[in-house]
Amino acid sequence: MNTRPTRILGIDPGSRVTGFGVIDVRGREHFYVASGCIKTPPNAPLAERIAVIVKHIDEIIAAYRPQQAAVEQVFVNVNPAATLMLGQARGAALAALVMHNLPTFEYTALQVKQAVVGKGKAAKEQVQHMVVQMLALSGTPQADAADGLAVALTHALRNHGLAAQLQQGGLQIKRGRFQVK
Amino acid sequence: MNTRPTRILGIDPGSRVTGFGVIDVRGREHFYVASGCIKTPPNAPLAERIAVIVKHIDEIIAAYRPQQAAVEQVFVNVNPAATLMLGQARGAALAALVMHNLPTFEYTALQVKQAVVGKGKAAKEQVQHMVVQMLALSGTPQADAADGLAVALTHALRNHGLAAQLQQGGLQIKRGRFQVK
Repeated sequence: MNTRPTRILGIDPGSRVTGFGVIDVRGREHFYVASGCIKTPPNAPLAERIAVIVKHIDEIIAAYRPQQAAVEQVFVNVNPAATLMLGQARGAALAALVMHNLPTFEYTALQVKQAVVGKGKAAKEQVQHMVVQMLALSGTPQADAADGLAVALTHALRNHGLAAQLQQGGLQIKRGRFQVK
Repeated sequence: MNTRPTRILGIDPGSRVTGFGVIDVRGREHFYVASGCIKTPPNAPLAERIAVIVKHIDEIIAAYRPQQAAVEQVFVNVNPAATLMLGQARGAALAALVMHNLPTFEYTALQVKQAVVGKGKAAKEQVQHMVVQMLALSGTPQADAADGLAVALTHALRNHGLAAQLQQGGLQIKRGRFQVK
């Protein structure tokens, strides 16, 4: 049995703040490693804001060396300009991940809430509460950092069964996603 | 007088096709270097599509070594999902550019048309026609490649005067943009 932990980097992209969380997973145990927020200067040119996101994610990967990444799928806003900006921030974050050849998985907010709280309609505070509980944190992390940890936990929780099946040869990885044969 | 050419990489981001064009600029002369299209597999997971964009731009920068980049500002679509996808593709392209520390400038479609054709309401064919004329091309490049060349030309045309002022010390670069002192 494999007892080496898998390190997961979770990212919650936003146009102003990108949350991140790093956890270690061994079997059904989860351990907190790090979390935080990447804040972009709101009045800076777009290229500069993109650079802030990319360089911070580069630094996080260099410091913590995750093996997999999980990224929250963003809410499509009714405001087209806001949606475009959010898309650009998310695209930059994904670019920084794939440039390091990190297998990258996506989860919707619904999937995150279902995995972490057990129901898709959970409030943001419930997600934060469960993140604190599951990782035995001594304090509550910032909302965006908690979302980064939540998406990392989601990836871990949804793939316990899959990882076991993989080891038994019942699954294959295709295009970076698990698929049942 | 500086007679060494400046090499500019122009990028026209799209959710399915990202056009690029590379030109050399010496004084008021423009020379074609390269152009083409980066096509992303439409049914692949987003991370894979982002990887295609980032890796192709990486290869283009390695092959042609541009000194500056110009990126077209995209049209905000009425369809939020399409806008988000376009934003993500554009964010990935910008990430690839800033990761190479390329000074990156943005131009709207209106600015491109005004610079290349002389009027903001020019048809797409007129832009293509002027790109062929200005770079003395023997054939017409694909639409997206022509748009990449057009945004590179726009950056060259709009900065002739600025570049001259820069050499005289009348301008400074702040946050990647030219500013009058």
